[in-house]
Amino acid sequence: MKAGVFIKPGQVEVKEFPKPTIEKPGDAIIRVVRASVCGSDLWWFRGISHRDANSLIGHEAIGIVESVGSEVTHIKPGDFVIAPFTHGCGHCVACRNGFDGDCLNQESGGNGGYQGEYLRFYNADWALVKIPGQPSDYSDDMLSSFVTLADVMATGYHAAASVEVKDGDTVVVLGDGAVGLCGVIAAKLRGAKRIIAMSHHEDRAKLARAFGATDIVSERGDDAIAKVMDLTNGDGADAVLECVGTEQSVAEATKVGRPGAIVGRVGVPQNPEMNTNNLFWKNTGLRGGIASVTTYDKAVLLQAVLDGKINPGKVFTQKFDLDHIQDAYDAMDQRKAIKSELIISD
Amino acid sequence: MKAGVFIKPGQVEVKEFPKPTIEKPGDAIIRVVRASVCGSDLWWFRGISHRDANSLIGHEAIGIVESVGSEVTHIKPGDFVIAPFTHGCGHCVACRNGFDGDCLNQESGGNGGYQGEYLRFYNADWALVKIPGQPSDYSDDMLSSFVTLADVMATGYHAAASVEVKDGDTVVVLGDGAVGLCGVIAAKLRGAKRIIAMSHHEDRAKLARAFGATDIVSERGDDAIAKVMDLTNGDGADAVLECVGTEQSVAEATKVGRPGAIVGRVGVPQNPEMNTNNLFWKNTGLRGGIASVTTYDKAVLLQAVLDGKINPGKVFTQKFDLDHIQDAYDAMDQRKAIKSELIISD
Repeated sequence: MKAGVFIKPGQVEVKEFPKPTIEKPGDAIIRVVRASVCGSDLWWFRGISHRDANSLIGHEAIGIVESVGSEVTHIKPGDFVIAPFTHGCGHCVACRNGFDGDCLNQESGGNGGYQGEYLRFYNADWALVKIPGQPSDYSDDMLSSFVTLADVMATGYHAAASVEVKDGDTVVVLGDGAVGLCGVIAAKLRGAKRIIAMSHHEDRAKLARAFGATDIVSERGDDAIAKVMDLTNGDGADAVLECVGTEQSVAEATKVGRPGAIVGRVGVPQNPEMNTNNLFWKNTGLRGGIASVTTYDKAVLLQAVLDGKINPGKVFTQKFDLDHIQDAYDAMDQRKAIKSELIISD
Repeated sequence: MKAGVFIKPGQVEVKEFPKPTIEKPGDAIIRVVRASVCGSDLWWFRGISHRDANSLIGHEAIGIVESVGSEVTHIKPGDFVIAPFTHGCGHCVACRNGFDGDCLNQESGGNGGYQGEYLRFYNADWALVKIPGQPSDYSDDMLSSFVTLADVMATGYHAAASVEVKDGDTVVVLGDGAVGLCGVIAAKLRGAKRIIAMSHHEDRAKLARAFGATDIVSERGDDAIAKVMDLTNGDGADAVLECVGTEQSVAEATKVGRPGAIVGRVGVPQNPEMNTNNLFWKNTGLRGGIASVTTYDKAVLLQAVLDGKINPGKVFTQKFDLDHIQDAYDAMDQRKAIKSELIISD
């Protein structure tokens, strides 16, 4: 089979590999229909984080189950599924409490190999999310939206769920990448009345508005904070979604909420050290982390896509076949695409 | 009138002062019946924080309203009241959202003067909490419990409310001072099924048990964390109340919760810098800050005391008259008292 691999910073390639096989009774082998490139893939693509040369890449996909291990009873060959980047077992303390992104029964060594023709997926019985019917039953747009349920839409939703966005809230979203845009979708889906998106790019601001943002703040730094306070009559927002992960963005996030607001962050923290005085003296909460993909997909997100209530697939502004995986990465790296989709099979 | 003043680290005195008068239309003058010494008073008593010499001291009291300003309509002379350390106006964004400890209409220059015969209290109309009847209608124990509603019981409750302790939860409480002990009371009041109190002192552990703690962990550091994990079958607690404020205690607090647990901290952070990796990778939340005293007293705590459901006054293990204020401070400073009460008038 063909699969994408990391060669060196700035370079990915498609290579031939043996087709994966069932290794454990909880595994499934999935024929990948579509996959995508994640903002976090750019970390190793840009050489900011380490990745072994020739390692399989990708952690977002949808596909058709080809075979399952002996302990997999809820998923069967032929099922059309979302393959989340998370692998919740469904029964540990993390999964039971809705935090399957922190499942205690994850394989060490992490995740990879979704950007290829076939994929071995462990903890398949609970973690995979079944989509009714087959790919041919859906429009291209709908298929794109399903792909976002493997990570980015669930991650944006995690920011909103972590801060408990509720009916009538005023919400600030920091970050106009695909996660931030999905944060806007999530805030609206949970009933936010006013959604203030911080965006510095016209194309992304336009998409944020289409997704439900009521106000765009294009200022930066202290000017952006002042603008949010101005828009909220000096009160600050009820909830803040931090979808960037930089030190500056986290610090800004702690300054735009009203007393008692919570900051939900889902961007991997660039610098874990922070001064928490801003938090304590305004009772500002800090929550967030790895998204609960399966939990949210099963509870809310898949149905919202099926009903046409949300269209997160619009974050894919460019699509590629597997042979053009380098172009898919380059487009995101050079900010020519908000997010790149890979069309792999029918 | 007589009132306690700070002289220098380790020394307080009672001096004569002019009786306070109404300065603003929102003021009330209160004849203090009982007051108390707060753990946070020890910061300046021990010279850790600065306080001006000859400044009035104390921020926890109950008393009788003697006079009110022209804009005070909900409180009248003769009312028996709790005088919280907070001064919520009742109508700003903080107060409207239940965070009156962060009221935007507080006077600058802070708080003081509750440890004296009379007290000027601003924002009296909303912030004061009326107690039915008069002091003579209540037992000594009940009066002591009312005093805790000015700060310590509400602060312990804030830790539990910040982490949303709910029916059936397993809760860890770090800190066996008066705030931590009130955290135990609060966790039980909110329905926690299991309350694990970290305590290193037999007398405090005994009181924690009387207040509802089901388990006492007397180990320290990593041993304490291991013990909590052991007690929870390796899962960790649903919620963690951090009632100390030291760097070590906050770090420990982030390690004893299950994935997705929230740490509620109410001890003023000794060191605001912290590494938040522990938070992000386990989806551990961090909330808390200045307590919402008036909000909690009116909603829950006063009625719970009146009904005899909670007896937080037991944290006062020593009582003094105003002339012995130095002894009241020494007893707490030397850990001879968990908390010192001052009996000022009938």
